[in-house]
Amino acid sequence: MAKKIVTIGGGSGQFILLSSLRDQLNIKITGIVSMVDSGGSTGRLRDEYGVLPPGDILKCILALAPNRNLARQILQKRFQANSRLKGHVVGNMLLTILSQYTFSFPKAVKALGEILHIKGQVLPVTICRATLTAELEDGSWLFGESAIDVPKSKKRAKILRTLLVPHHSDDIKVYPPVIKALERADYLFIGPGDLYTSITPNFLVKGVMEAITHSKAKKIYLCNIMTKFGETDNFKVSDFVTTIEKFIHCRLDIVIINSTKPSLQIIKKYQKEHSQLVKNDLSTFQPNFEIISHDLLNDKGGIIRHDYHKLADLIKRIIV
Amino acid sequence: MAKKIVTIGGGSGQFILLSSLRDQLNIKITGIVSMVDSGGSTGRLRDEYGVLPPGDILKCILALAPNRNLARQILQKRFQANSRLKGHVVGNMLLTILSQYTFSFPKAVKALGEILHIKGQVLPVTICRATLTAELEDGSWLFGESAIDVPKSKKRAKILRTLLVPHHSDDIKVYPPVIKALERADYLFIGPGDLYTSITPNFLVKGVMEAITHSKAKKIYLCNIMTKFGETDNFKVSDFVTTIEKFIHCRLDIVIINSTKPSLQIIKKYQKEHSQLVKNDLSTFQPNFEIISHDLLNDKGGIIRHDYHKLADLIKRIIV
Repeated sequence: MAKKIVTIGGGSGQFILLSSLRDQLNIKITGIVSMVDSGGSTGRLRDEYGVLPPGDILKCILALAPNRNLARQILQKRFQANSRLKGHVVGNMLLTILSQYTFSFPKAVKALGEILHIKGQVLPVTICRATLTAELEDGSWLFGESAIDVPKSKKRAKILRTLLVPHHSDDIKVYPPVIKALERADYLFIGPGDLYTSITPNFLVKGVMEAITHSKAKKIYLCNIMTKFGETDNFKVSDFVTTIEKFIHCRLDIVIINSTKPSLQIIKKYQKEHSQLVKNDLSTFQPNFEIISHDLLNDKGGIIRHDYHKLADLIKRIIV
Repeated sequence: MAKKIVTIGGGSGQFILLSSLRDQLNIKITGIVSMVDSGGSTGRLRDEYGVLPPGDILKCILALAPNRNLARQILQKRFQANSRLKGHVVGNMLLTILSQYTFSFPKAVKALGEILHIKGQVLPVTICRATLTAELEDGSWLFGESAIDVPKSKKRAKILRTLLVPHHSDDIKVYPPVIKALERADYLFIGPGDLYTSITPNFLVKGVMEAITHSKAKKIYLCNIMTKFGETDNFKVSDFVTTIEKFIHCRLDIVIINSTKPSLQIIKKYQKEHSQLVKNDLSTFQPNFEIISHDLLNDKGGIIRHDYHKLADLIKRIIV
């Protein structure tokens, strides 16, 4: 029987994760996407139309499209010419009108998935509108994903905790098919991506943490390669793992770590942006999960991310 | 200097004409599109959003896109699943939101053209909303392109005349860049396509006929291969030419006719739909235009239309 694979995360990291899953045989894929993105084209559409954030969902849909590269050429393109559209992404505009027309964000997501014949399904973790809010260690607050994502000053206090503040109802209700997918999953892949602004906002939605805790799925965490300024400064692998486990209220089964160092030149470039290699400190304490350390690096074009071909080979061996 | 080529018409016929022009060297292409389509996905969007009809414009934009086949795979796809979107075309939805967002249909058209890096430009003949209206020889009236396009009964009186009835203003004003393009054109290609519902509605827009009359462009008419039930029943080439000349108030310079007969089997299939081969009767009278009779047939898949590769070869020789 086909293995049920669920991924949970945000945009770019999950694009790579889902890309690595698309061509695996005999699996059923569900990508669960956080709904807090408030920057760029997505943020403008949220402000102007009150829609749910389309950008991360779009990336995940494209990752699962059989003709991914071609579809991205059109749907991820940005309008350049000087008009009100400047900076907007074609696919975001399309998801916006599909939402308006069907009166339903998930229906819009499904319709675009149908058009692109995607393998598997992509689900918003919630269809309630919310503002991601962070309390810092100095007692100050940050409101909105993009404010947390991009620090305004060169030094910022550590994030103490995050919460989802609903726009309308009392609770941020989970989108029910998400619970169903989590309950039935054989494997749950978490991350990679921005810890507080992409990954963990999923776990803040009521019901998600409980569903993960009760799920019999093997829980696999794909750790970030680099720290992120203002969010995970000085984080080691153990910090990422501890944070994730605190959010999901249960133990991980496998932690996957990239074993290959990028070139010194690229690391230096990242250091200028206050971003450093995530140190693997798991040997210093006794973890009760399996650690898979493997070459997963892609640093072509001077950008450090996971390589989805390498990741696909590794995942093939994990989900047999 | 690059030759300025203007085409004028509607959707499917102009898709082929513009497709045949896309890869010609050293030309500047302008496609002028009638704005009366009221059927299918386009008609629904007109009714529901009050937008200008996007369907024909979309076809023309796609014709000029360097990666035409790929772009059509996504943007001409129809939603199939049972939802409010069912039957709608992806690109029509996109043009609708781009229009809403820019508060301008031509800006939306330009933005989509920019995304697809089209060669040349596509212009709506007008940005005023109008209903194409036809008076029949029996004194009855038909309202709307789709009512004229698809006869309700097996026999219908001949079309006596057509007019554009504005929704708001007194006049259907021409979109000014259309006049500029017509004035500067070196070659003007008219048709092929539905005579009364795609081609001639362009000439009903105030100023278009005058601009064509005064233009020094060589006026070339690409005659239909088949008659259309309820619109051009029993029309011979001379009927098409006479009608066009009456609409543009001036003489054509060249008339292009397909010289190859489709197979008897396909002709029989068309006869069931009351559609017949357009007879070339130009030898029976003394035309004062050049006649080019050439193999332009494409009847693959049992559908009779012009072949844009063959047309491209012919046009190359005309516009040297």
